[in-house]
Formats: sequence, structure tokens, C-alpha cells
Amino acid sequence: MREFVFDNSTRIIFGPESEKQLGSEISRFSKKVLLHYGGGSIKKFGVYDKVMGNLNKSGIEVFELGGVKPNPTLDKVYDGIELCRKNGIDFILAVGGGSVIDSAKAIAMGVEYEGDFWDFYEKGVPVKKALPIGVVLTIPAAGSEASTASVLTNESNKLKISASSLLIRPKFAVMNPTFTFSLPPYQTAAGIVDMMAHIMERYFTQDRNVDFTDKLSEAALRSIIKNAGKVMENPEDYDARAEIMWAGTMAHNDILGVGRRSDWATHAIEHQLSSLYDMTHGAGLAVIFPAWIRYVKDAYIEKIMQFFHEVFDVEAVFENPDYVVGEGISRLKRFYKSIGMPTSLEEAGITDNRFEEMAELCTRCGYVGSFKKLGKDDVVEIYKLAGK
Amino acid sequence: MREFVFDNSTRIIFGPESEKQLGSEISRFSKKVLLHYGGGSIKKFGVYDKVMGNLNKSGIEVFELGGVKPNPTLDKVYDGIELCRKNGIDFILAVGGGSVIDSAKAIAMGVEYEGDFWDFYEKGVPVKKALPIGVVLTIPAAGSEASTASVLTNESNKLKISASSLLIRPKFAVMNPTFTFSLPPYQTAAGIVDMMAHIMERYFTQDRNVDFTDKLSEAALRSIIKNAGKVMENPEDYDARAEIMWAGTMAHNDILGVGRRSDWATHAIEHQLSSLYDMTHGAGLAVIFPAWIRYVKDAYIEKIMQFFHEVFDVEAVFENPDYVVGEGISRLKRFYKSIGMPTSLEEAGITDNRFEEMAELCTRCGYVGSFKKLGKDDVVEIYKLAGK
Repeated sequence: MREFVFDNSTRIIFGPESEKQLGSEISRFSKKVLLHYGGGSIKKFGVYDKVMGNLNKSGIEVFELGGVKPNPTLDKVYDGIELCRKNGIDFILAVGGGSVIDSAKAIAMGVEYEGDFWDFYEKGVPVKKALPIGVVLTIPAAGSEASTASVLTNESNKLKISASSLLIRPKFAVMNPTFTFSLPPYQTAAGIVDMMAHIMERYFTQDRNVDFTDKLSEAALRSIIKNAGKVMENPEDYDARAEIMWAGTMAHNDILGVGRRSDWATHAIEHQLSSLYDMTHGAGLAVIFPAWIRYVKDAYIEKIMQFFHEVFDVEAVFENPDYVVGEGISRLKRFYKSIGMPTSLEEAGITDNRFEEMAELCTRCGYVGSFKKLGKDDVVEIYKLAGK
Repeated sequence: MREFVFDNSTRIIFGPESEKQLGSEISRFSKKVLLHYGGGSIKKFGVYDKVMGNLNKSGIEVFELGGVKPNPTLDKVYDGIELCRKNGIDFILAVGGGSVIDSAKAIAMGVEYEGDFWDFYEKGVPVKKALPIGVVLTIPAAGSEASTASVLTNESNKLKISASSLLIRPKFAVMNPTFTFSLPPYQTAAGIVDMMAHIMERYFTQDRNVDFTDKLSEAALRSIIKNAGKVMENPEDYDARAEIMWAGTMAHNDILGVGRRSDWATHAIEHQLSSLYDMTHGAGLAVIFPAWIRYVKDAYIEKIMQFFHEVFDVEAVFENPDYVVGEGISRLKRFYKSIGMPTSLEEAGITDNRFEEMAELCTRCGYVGSFKKLGKDDVVEIYKLAGK
């Protein structure tokens, strides 16, 4: 086990009426808030009214900025920074999923920075100050509600990249599972793939002797798979929605990543798909992960075998690793398909070949991954394997 | 799943040289520190020198108060409060295990309180203010390094009771697994029983639909059992010591307790043993837990069966719950014995019968437990079952 620092201070307020605590939570920081949200589904399904009702009752002055798109872009961030500066807003409440939260994080950094906020993403400029953020989560997927990262897409050059700082970790996250009842099946499923990927990116490590966290991760994955079936079957199953929602946070708050080097190649390879084709991130991960496993398996096949045995119940045929891995990949794909996700580029409707271009962008800063270090040619091969 | 608030802000600094970060961590709060510790083993095994070396280098003024005993008592707390007040000390660094940390927490509350600090324990007076605390952990067991609780024993009336407040959660915990190499086998084993009990107290709940946390808990227990064998075999196995150390924190930071009502009857029943016979808490738990399971099993036998099947690999003979539970209790006891723990009062050297007296103290504030509510007579029966 490697040395580590674990420090996660996001306060989680979880339950069927948790939004009622918004006013008192925000009042610890401010009385003037930017309410940041997406395309309007929060208005359609009553979340907006519940949130506004509580904020109004608590005497909080609210400025609104909606319209954040999936794979969020830079324009909304510039708008948000301006709005905050002009009105002296010093707290941002993100109501939505990862896209909205990541956009809010960018605004929080940008308001307190003299230069262009995109420096934090493209140039890796360290964050010195940021406004505090709170979250009302409506899409369990990205885990951004308790993470230190933000991912944005620059439409001008198609770069989808991340910035990270302890300063942008949300102060609190209000999580009401009933707010996820109205999530369409495709988004529910993409979220499930995403949270599983957050665990898998951490699980596939070259570090040995990480048993405790391995066992927790396998257990988390099994439970997500079990409850995925339930929420796809009955979108208003409170308990299954609650399990999935909490799992999404746990998958990315780094409890399941301590003491090891994580991989993150699959995320980097997928980001090119969602940037170029505006594909849903989770769907892209369902396409890439099986191909990635097939390509890298020999780097540490025992770990891949352990994964498929422990998570997908593949028989432990020790003398035949190829069987375990092959059968495992089949079962992983079968699971993705069972919740309506594509498992190849073709199934995702991508039939042109821009592999070279995407691999070039993916590896523009050097190798990706650490389970197996991947260069441009490796990434091209993985896109090829993901083809059909 | 019940509604919950999860809020754990203790910063964990984990690794073979983690104490080197002490100075910078403490400097965030103070330059004047009370160093609180136990019976001197930290001096014998070099921990004291490493800690003092780092504090001196960081220009931190140190006042010392050692001599905290297992099942810590009130006298040291009064000494500590006086020392802090007299010298304007405003940060407490606990170097040790649960006893030292719990004593430090009492001092932290007491310094900022006009009345007798014991009010927090006996009268449940809410804590309004407390000094910040840091921890250098040397015994993985109590989980107090990231918890909000403190347990003390009042020698005058043999009451062992706890106080709890978010304000006494340590700001950071420095965890260096090499500091646990010199722990004697008995203390190592008692710590393992204690951390397992912290998970089991949360696992045995009447709340349904808590699958995700159940699975994590079972995984944690299996990993502790596996690594327990390794540390008993080779006390200087860094990786196994690291797994056990981190497991001890995770067992009690409430990650494994969210969304459910916990039980804690076994702790309450055990506290009478460690108070009356000055028994090691973990050893007492090894005596009580199997008896408790046997007594309460019918309150929710499916959960007990799930526990023994998932954690101790007892065959899932659905039509014969008695077999599953009986075989499970045997395996649990066999495990405790394998690491040198007693599994009956007789084995623990307790042959007199003060069951009535202990049960009376245990239930002085009413029923204990929630998996099955236990009154005085129930507790007497559990002591009887634990006899041989």
C-alpha cells in the first residue's frame, strides 16, 4: 500500500426531504447565491420549486444561470463569472449532475482569478482561491458532488480536459433520491457505467497489497450491478435509487482509491469520443472499457482475473487466464447491454474512423494510464478493438 | 435506507513517514501544544523521539502529559484541563490509541467549559466549544482517530460511559503502520476484535434495503480476518499492518454506518466487564459478541445468516437457519481463539457471578440495542450465555 492523504470534507445530506436543509447549510457561507443549473428538467419535475422555496424561506438572495449543457462548455462559465463579479455573489449552488457541478466549479475558481479561468485546465495553473460551492444532486454519475475535479470541453479546439483542486470540493451535497425518479433510462444507465468506471479506474493498479480497498471496491461494484437491475426495472424504487445515488458518491470520493496509483486511461480515451461526437460520457465508457481490458490484460492478468471472478462470478480457472478474461469481458458487455448501453463504436452509431486524430489528442501531453502506459499507437489499437 | 448526514472531515495522513507532516498540520491551528500519551511504550519504541523531533523542528512549544491508562479515568483529564488553562495551550496532540485519544477529547471539551467536564458524559450536556485535536495513532482499534466519541471510566462509581460531539472529531490523524510493529500480540488481537465489532454493531440493524453498505461491511470484515492472520504471524509485515490500521479507521468513521440504525448493545454489555474487571475492551467483545448473537438471533435471523454466509463462508442452507447460525458462531469463536482472544468469561478468568450488578449498570438508562431491545433480564441471560 502506498502512502496517502485522505481528506474529504464534503458534508452529505441524504434523504427524501434533504433539500429542506439547504437554507441553513448555505447560510453558513452566504446570503447571496448563484443558482446554476442545466436545461430545465429541474423545472419540469419540481426540483426547482422545492429548492427555490427553501432558499426564499431562508432569506437568501438568488441569481440564476441555467442552460448548462452535457459536456459543458466555456461560455456559461464566462457568463457565470461576470454575473458573480457584477453582483457580489459569493456562493454557488449547483443543481444538477456532473456537468452543472463542473461548470459551477469553474465559475468558483474563475471569479477569484485575474487571468482566463481556462488556464486552470489547459495550463494547469494552481488554484489559490475559489468561492465555496454547494450541490443539489439530480444525476448520480460523475461523483463531482464530493470530488476535487472539474471537466470541461473547449468547443473551439475540441479539448475536453480537467482541472483539480481541494478548493473546489463542494462544501455540502444535498442528495434526495426521489429527485432521480424522473431520470430517463439512458441517463440512468450512463450514470451507472460512469460510477462503475470510477471504481474500476482505481481498482486496476499495479500496486500490490491493497486488499482492503480491493475488497470494498468489488463489493461496491456487485452492489451497483444488483441495484442497476432494480432501477432500470422500476425507476421509482426509492431504495434502489438511494443505493445507486450513494454508490455514485462513494465511487469518486476517493475512499476506494487510497494507497494506490489509479489508471484513468479509459477516461482519457473516452473523453475524445464525448468531445468529438458529443457522446454521453457513460455510454462512451461502456464502449471503451471492454476494449481497454482486452488490450492491457497481460500487464497484470491476475488482477483482471480477480476482477472478473469477484465482480462477475466467472469461475476461477487458474490454469486458463484467457478463459477467465474472455468470459469476463463477455459478461461485462452483457451487463452494459442489459441496461441499454452500447458496447462498440458501431452500436454507438460511430462508423467513421478518426482514430488517429483522437489518439493524437488523447496523448498530446504524453502517455496515458499507469496499469499499462499507453502511447498514441496503443490508443489507436484500443479504438480499433472498440469498433465492433 | 434511512436518511442520513455524513460529515467526516478528519484529514488522514497515512504512510511510513507520515509523522514528518505533523509540524505543518499543527501549525494550521497553534504553536502551543499539549502532548498527551500513555504509559511510556511510545518512548521505548522511538515514536516519542520522532514526534518530538518534528515538533521541535517546526518551532512548536510542547507541554507534556503522559500516563493515560487503558480504560482511561478522570484524573488525567482534570490534570490536562488545568495544564492547558494555566499555560494557554490551545491544541492537543494525542499520541497513542483510543484511551489516549478519548482522554484528549475530554480535555479538549473541558478546557472550554465552566462546569465539570464529566457533565458531558453523565448528564449528556451538549458541547458548545472544544479545543482542536490531532492524533498520532499507535494502536489500531478504537477508531477514535476519526470519530466524534470519547469513552471514559469513572473509577468512583465504575461507570464507563461515552460523550459525543462533532466538535471533538480530530482535525487530522497521522497513521504510520510501522508504529504498530511493536504492539504485543494480545493488544493487536484485541484491536482487531474491536474494529470488527464496530462494523458488526452497525451491520446488525433492523433496517432493510441497506445493500451497498452491507456489502462494503462484509468485504471489510473478510479483509480484516485475512490480514489478522498475517499480522499475528509476522508483526512486521508492513502491508498487513497497513491494511489493519486503515480498516480500524474505516470501521468507525461511519462510512459503514450510513442510512441505518446501529445496535451498540454489545458495546454497552462489554463496558461493564472492562470497567469492573479492568478487562481489555476487545477481549471483552470477543466474549460477549457470540453470546449476544445467540441470544438475539431470532429478531432477524436472515441478517444473521447473511452475516455468517458472507463473512465466514458458512454454506447457505436456507432451510436450516439453526445450522447456519450455530456453525457461524463456532467459526466466529474459532477465529477469535486463533488470534489469542478469550471467547467466554471463564477463559477470560472471570468465574464469579456479578451478572445482576453489571446488567443493572448496563441498563440504568433504559433498554440497550436496537436489533433487539434488551432490558436488564436479557442482559443477565447474555452474561450467562457468555459464561463458558
